[in-house]
Amino acid sequence: MGRRLTDVSTPGRLAAAGEGLGQDELALAARNHGLPLEAMRYDVTPPGLHYVLTHYDIPHVPDEATWQLTVGGSVRHALTLSTADLRTYPPLTTRVTLECAGNGRALLVPRPVSQPWLLEAVGTAEWTGVPLRLLLEEAGVASDAVDVVFTGADHGVERGVEQDYQRSLPVGVALGDEPEVLVAYAMDGAPLPPQHGRPLRLVVPGWYGMTQVKWLRGITVIDTPFTGFQQSVAYRIKRDPDEAGEPVTRIAPRALVIPPGFPDFMSRTRVVAPGPVLLEGRAWSGAAPVTSVDVSTDGGATWQPAALEPDHGHHWAWRRWSFRWFAVPGDHVLGARAHDGAGNTQPLEQAWNRGGFANNLIQRVPVFCPDDTA
Amino acid sequence: MGRRLTDVSTPGRLAAAGEGLGQDELALAARNHGLPLEAMRYDVTPPGLHYVLTHYDIPHVPDEATWQLTVGGSVRHALTLSTADLRTYPPLTTRVTLECAGNGRALLVPRPVSQPWLLEAVGTAEWTGVPLRLLLEEAGVASDAVDVVFTGADHGVERGVEQDYQRSLPVGVALGDEPEVLVAYAMDGAPLPPQHGRPLRLVVPGWYGMTQVKWLRGITVIDTPFTGFQQSVAYRIKRDPDEAGEPVTRIAPRALVIPPGFPDFMSRTRVVAPGPVLLEGRAWSGAAPVTSVDVSTDGGATWQPAALEPDHGHHWAWRRWSFRWFAVPGDHVLGARAHDGAGNTQPLEQAWNRGGFANNLIQRVPVFCPDDTA
Repeated sequence: MGRRLTDVSTPGRLAAAGEGLGQDELALAARNHGLPLEAMRYDVTPPGLHYVLTHYDIPHVPDEATWQLTVGGSVRHALTLSTADLRTYPPLTTRVTLECAGNGRALLVPRPVSQPWLLEAVGTAEWTGVPLRLLLEEAGVASDAVDVVFTGADHGVERGVEQDYQRSLPVGVALGDEPEVLVAYAMDGAPLPPQHGRPLRLVVPGWYGMTQVKWLRGITVIDTPFTGFQQSVAYRIKRDPDEAGEPVTRIAPRALVIPPGFPDFMSRTRVVAPGPVLLEGRAWSGAAPVTSVDVSTDGGATWQPAALEPDHGHHWAWRRWSFRWFAVPGDHVLGARAHDGAGNTQPLEQAWNRGGFANNLIQRVPVFCPDDTA
Repeated sequence: MGRRLTDVSTPGRLAAAGEGLGQDELALAARNHGLPLEAMRYDVTPPGLHYVLTHYDIPHVPDEATWQLTVGGSVRHALTLSTADLRTYPPLTTRVTLECAGNGRALLVPRPVSQPWLLEAVGTAEWTGVPLRLLLEEAGVASDAVDVVFTGADHGVERGVEQDYQRSLPVGVALGDEPEVLVAYAMDGAPLPPQHGRPLRLVVPGWYGMTQVKWLRGITVIDTPFTGFQQSVAYRIKRDPDEAGEPVTRIAPRALVIPPGFPDFMSRTRVVAPGPVLLEGRAWSGAAPVTSVDVSTDGGATWQPAALEPDHGHHWAWRRWSFRWFAVPGDHVLGARAHDGAGNTQPLEQAWNRGGFANNLIQRVPVFCPDDTA
């Protein structure tokens, strides 16, 4: 035979100029799904509308009662916790906006061939669970600890590497309380749905989705930097395949417009009637709170400030913004630009990397305003 | 300007040989979503995993209490019903498998350019509501009634036609009780999620998804055949654009395999260890109950009968089947074939139509069984 397990993987690649999406990209797009942007109207994303990305299969968990989470490695007392054990800790609930690190990838030129997100890979939920630092304090983290590794039950092959999905956090982040990292067992007041990690997942407010390990079954403290596939090969910001690159960590600022008016089924072009239109949307950043949002209705030629709602105490969730526009007949391109308290903003020109990670180019929403729709 | 509203639509077309998917198809794939096939393990699809197709936007319904459903047209007493009114009728709950009429479209050669479904556009839920015939009996349907038209609140343009989404049923089906058509207000015991029609939708067991009008606000009895866009232009089975074609109605039989083993992230190729593998999946038909399922592990060269579970009284829901396979090293192609009580089965060769509707070619699941994974 000669064919090996690793041969089922194809190498990472970029799409050629003008190359349409392949069946491999479609297979991912058909399984995973984004947030229809009109659903940004909801402060908390209703069940089933939050974006989902699963690298492999959703694991089958027939009986949550037998699920075990281990906390081990460089700790004084290894722990084994059931989901019932975790519910004996004081619960903490946090509203968090999560975004996939690859959001926007399919808009890049050239297009990295992977999960082909346009801009919908986002969602906001109220997660309930146990602060990770309480579990780590109970286990007693060794003084020479470097990273904390999180292992999910999802299993597959990726670029020839058979693996359980694993990601790590620096020990300082894992033990910190800003953000307060959660081992979560509930989403919006209900047990986690299967696709969001039932029965347990990690929630790290402000960090991109790859950090939020689902189907969490192991927490391992290590005294060397973690070099697993998802940490040191995937999710690196690099332009050349041979670079080590920089790790993907916190969410870059982004503002999105709820496309106004109504769509054409196939082209998705928006139609708005002439007259006043209340544009609204959401803005978020994982580095620092969003401080302002600007809006353009002329494809980025000019910008005006939007009204930004207070965060109502939800520091890690998106903020609503709005802007009164007067639509006149013709073609328009809408967009919004978020700025955060750390001085970060969205670039006016595409910043490209070969994984398509953490890109946050300004959205373009083409809108047609016909003369005869008054 | 000269540009008109209808210009936002592009004509229906077929993809050229080898043409990858365009950004228009991707925009639909990113919004709408299928059922990850491993979730066929659940008798009833968990929230958020059921397939969703929305032609236009999900309408914003800030207050269900003010929603009104009208029943009018050729009736003796027009009705206006609130969602609270509907809850005063004796509720009926039915388990129903719904499938999009375009499921499998993106596998067709040539590929009709539209929502690019592979095979995941399916799901099973328990719908609760009021039998439609009770409402129609109360309104008093005129003796010369022909069709009953259902109007949703979703609004858009399609092939140049601005429209609220509308579909009809023949009056005999609307007044019948086999299947019992529902005006549903709950899904799996909870109010309908926004993307499934909150607050009201039609559920017609056994019929393809385009019939299941969401965000239902009007029921109109008419004494001529309904000729709306979604009835007489879209959802027709035809090979040439100028044909009238046949209407899409009931779900053709289909069996799907839960892909065994584990996947490669990008190629989605499945890997199974050598040895016994319990293959399982689901089978359904809208014309008559599924009576048998055959399984092939050699790409359709040979077929063997699967074990078919009883329907447990759920006549309109998928049935579980299973088959014991002994995997040996090498490459295999799995598939399953459903037969129903009306003599329908799945074709062995592609039956093509230009909308890609009601196609039910047998699934192909390539599986690699390595020598060294014992």
